[in-house]
Amino acid sequence: MTDGEPVRAFVPGHVTGLFSVHPHEDPRRAGSRGAGCCLSAGVTVSVRPDRSGEVVLGGRAVELEAATRVLDALGVEAGVCAETALPVSAGFGVSGATALGTALAANTRFELARTENELVGIAHAAEVAAGTGLGDVVAQARGGVPIRVEPGAPAHGELDCIPARGRIEHVTFGELSTADVLGGSTGGLSRAGERALSTVLDGPTFERLLAASRTFADEADLLTPPVREAIDAVGAAGGEAVMAMLGDTVVARGTGLSDAGYDAATCTIDPTGATLL
Amino acid sequence: MTDGEPVRAFVPGHVTGLFSVHPHEDPRRAGSRGAGCCLSAGVTVSVRPDRSGEVVLGGRAVELEAATRVLDALGVEAGVCAETALPVSAGFGVSGATALGTALAANTRFELARTENELVGIAHAAEVAAGTGLGDVVAQARGGVPIRVEPGAPAHGELDCIPARGRIEHVTFGELSTADVLGGSTGGLSRAGERALSTVLDGPTFERLLAASRTFADEADLLTPPVREAIDAVGAAGGEAVMAMLGDTVVARGTGLSDAGYDAATCTIDPTGATLL
Repeated sequence: MTDGEPVRAFVPGHVTGLFSVHPHEDPRRAGSRGAGCCLSAGVTVSVRPDRSGEVVLGGRAVELEAATRVLDALGVEAGVCAETALPVSAGFGVSGATALGTALAANTRFELARTENELVGIAHAAEVAAGTGLGDVVAQARGGVPIRVEPGAPAHGELDCIPARGRIEHVTFGELSTADVLGGSTGGLSRAGERALSTVLDGPTFERLLAASRTFADEADLLTPPVREAIDAVGAAGGEAVMAMLGDTVVARGTGLSDAGYDAATCTIDPTGATLL
Repeated sequence: MTDGEPVRAFVPGHVTGLFSVHPHEDPRRAGSRGAGCCLSAGVTVSVRPDRSGEVVLGGRAVELEAATRVLDALGVEAGVCAETALPVSAGFGVSGATALGTALAANTRFELARTENELVGIAHAAEVAAGTGLGDVVAQARGGVPIRVEPGAPAHGELDCIPARGRIEHVTFGELSTADVLGGSTGGLSRAGERALSTVLDGPTFERLLAASRTFADEADLLTPPVREAIDAVGAAGGEAVMAMLGDTVVARGTGLSDAGYDAATCTIDPTGATLL
């Protein structure tokens, strides 16, 4: 590969509908159980040799600990450039996507000969250690509508998937800090998440995932006022919407949000999972 | 869903470069260890309610036991229509792709609420029981350049993946019967396959997979004369080619076959894995 030529990876966005928290001192064994949906809107990450270790997101240099930890774990000196149409700190897993895209692109660019499972494990551990996510990375590696049946990186966790395709709309009202929510007491949240996941596993359809996610958001008391209002408005218009965990964001199936009068962004369920470009 | 409206799924073709055979009385635990490559050329499968249970492949009614077994396992009466540009009985996993596509499409069409892992398990077991394949289905579900680290359906097997993209060429000289080869003594073949897989796992790159696959084909004594000649010609022209197991087929990276003067079909490494359309 020519020196300086960037290698690019695409990682889908991921919205979690319901989850429970499973801490562990080994970040590869820590994670979340739960379910969500990968989006065709995602993050494109390029990596090139650069001693600065700078991470640029949307044209702006940022502190993105998960990506920096990936470079450290791989032992490479690289600059990371991430581009996305998705809002940041809004529940779309942009930090996890950037970490995973960094791992995939760096592996190819620096000829590190790591497997996909190893790279997913490195990105998952980096995201957990940074405190910015618990389940996005493994879900984004799989694509589709992933169920995190057991928490953790590939060697430890277990994934399944609800076969589903279709249009998705989303609207974001502001920022929420994943670290703030996950840093507090999560016992009640996790009990609600376990109940919701059982419901999904008893009848794994996209419809049931949406319904269980709404129940979870209510029980875990995570709804912000504009999110509650939008979910109700979509329901009143005959559609289905859920909160993106953890963001001040609503995601709807089909044309749910625009039918309810919202100016929503549009994408589809992503079937691919993370991939080199 | 409107009655009679077909649901379609796409499943990538899959060529195995090296493998070992792992029989088990439970077809979900039986399978192969090994590695190969999924192709952007694949099989598009549509399913509709039809009491005939007819399987049509390329416009012609065929006996395709793996697909019929999938319909039986799911308990549905359906007609299956499969379209592909890939040759049949040539090592591209067309039977496994048709079985998996049937499972995915039927699940959605008949609202069976099975998860992806369950559907992959049903298709894998059907393919094993039909004697037409041991590892294509699980590889085709994953996409990319899958390594079957442990044999069997999702609950039992284990997959990893070599991150790689790029152009692939292929040429087929005739038909080979998977059942004939797998029906004979496979001890020597499996020992060669285990050695080759160890080589790949020691340095999991696409280059090493190609080299290990050539060694495996030699040691397992599987090369047909035209396949041997084509692999040598591609190598003499500076390229890399391998035999597709089990087919009278050669697969080359990049422009390897056309550089060597062959009239080859072209596709790319498929990143997606099987998916609903």
